[in-house]
Amino acid sequence: MSPATDDTDLELVMAIVRPEKLSDVKAALAEAGAPSLTVTQVSGRGSQPAKTGQWRGEEYVIDLHQKIKVECVVEPEDADDVVEAIREGANTGEKGDGKIFVLPVFDAVQVRTGDRGTDAI
Amino acid sequence: MSPATDDTDLELVMAIVRPEKLSDVKAALAEAGAPSLTVTQVSGRGSQPAKTGQWRGEEYVIDLHQKIKVECVVEPEDADDVVEAIREGANTGEKGDGKIFVLPVFDAVQVRTGDRGTDAI
Amino acid sequence: MSPATDDTDLELVMAIVRPEKLSDVKAALAEAGAPSLTVTQVSGRGSQPAKTGQWRGEEYVIDLHQKIKVECVVEPEDADDVVEAIREGANTGEKGDGKIFVLPVFDAVQVRTGDRGTDAI
Ligand SMILES: Nc1ncnc2c1ncn2[C@@H]1O[C@H](COP(=O)(O)OP(=O)(O)OP(=O)(O)O)[C@@H](O)[C@H]1O
Ligand SMILES: Nc1ncnc2c1ncn2[C@@H]1O[C@H](COP(=O)(O)OP(=O)(O)OP(=O)(O)O)[C@@H](O)[C@H]1O
Ligand SMILES: Nc1ncnc2c1ncn2[C@@H]1O[C@H](COP(=O)(O)OP(=O)(O)OP(=O)(O)O)[C@@H](O)[C@H]1O
Ligand SMILES: [Mg+2]
Ligand SMILES: [Mg+2]
Ligand SMILES: [Mg+2]
Repeated sequence: MSPATDDTDLELVMAIVRPEKLSDVKAALAEAGAPSLTVTQVSGRGSQPAKTGQWRGEEYVIDLHQKIKVECVVEPEDADDVVEAIREGANTGEKGDGKIFVLPVFDAVQVRTGDRGTDAI
Repeated sequence: MSPATDDTDLELVMAIVRPEKLSDVKAALAEAGAPSLTVTQVSGRGSQPAKTGQWRGEEYVIDLHQKIKVECVVEPEDADDVVEAIREGANTGEKGDGKIFVLPVFDAVQVRTGDRGTDAI
Repeated sequence: MSPATDDTDLELVMAIVRPEKLSDVKAALAEAGAPSLTVTQVSGRGSQPAKTGQWRGEEYVIDLHQKIKVECVVEPEDADDVVEAIREGANTGEKGDGKIFVLPVFDAVQVRTGDRGTDAI
């Protein structure tokens, strides 16, 4: 495995979305022909300042919101469609809808078959 | 930190494996001389269609299976051995055994010492 | 989205830190002007050998320690400051303080607005 980037023939689309939009995101990905994905429960904050509340007379700060991370490793030529599908599934128009990041991936291996590269995803 | 890829002197091996194979994967990595790793509980689906079941007369769909993500940042020259060790530990020969992805990493820092690059992993 | 690395105009700073240092890390990031982050509960091991203990006469091995993963997507020119802020927040001087990795990111999209690249983070 070489560190040179012309070997980068896959991409990781990593999205942070609202938990209640996960099933819309999954449906949009399946419809776009990219059903494979990995899901992680995360929390986070974007650019909004922390919200302050009161509980039993004590002030507290909610600064991390529950979110879901969705990761899809895809061929580069499919990455834009996958990003668009996730955006359609995740969008409510309200602040907090999330972010989508695209990272380079050098290689993929399917454990069962040993297939590599685009054959492995 | 420059975005140029000739600065990429580390790699992230990210594997999604069966929970019940985690200890075999850890053993295989230790034996390969690469014991450091980060573990995350995830769920996901690969290329199989969702499974349908019945519960109290209601139909339901299992579409996400519990998996474990194992991440190891290694020197590029060790990445193939690390991938092979994970594959050996994770393989059962059945569908659902998982995937291994390899991503470029620009730099690493050890918090305690401030060491960077290959000295930090 | 092209796989060429001169398109890489963002970076992912991924840190694995002690759970009890998360609030110091968040404060250091906010102070450094980089408040956005995603947090995941993980476990892991570094270069220390597993610790052996006794419980009701049985020997057991603690080989994975609870940690927190903090991820921040930032502009490349800010990556060093973000790494330094995390290090300051996470450091106790004891073994197990953690690691910080920096990965290339091709692109970012803000779900609500559709903004891309540096406008999206
Ligand atoms: N730069 C970033 N790095 C890492 N994670 C991020 C970043 N920006 C956002 N996130 C993750 O995405 C989640 C949702 O972010 P959010 O949609 O609130 O972004 P925002 O920039 O505040 O946009 P909006 O104004 O639409 O709310 C956050 O809770 C966090 O988990
Ligand atoms: N392209 C992908 N992107 C992100 N995660 C993936 C991808 N493919 C698989 N995964 C993750 O790996 C897990 C295991 O996948 P799995 O082994 O079922 O892959 P598969 O392609 O269906 O191969 P097999 O036919 O051997 O089952 C999934 O549950 C998911 O978490
Ligand atoms: N090479 C690595 N790849 C992936 N995760 C790592 C790696 N090294 C460390 N980690 C993660 O960081 C956590 C903390 O590591 P730790 O600080 O113990 O590193 P270390 O190399 O043992 O340094 P120290 O001697 O300061 O303890 C681990 O539990 C693991 O989750
Ligand atoms: Mg927001
Ligand atoms: Mg499968
Ligand atoms: Mg250690």
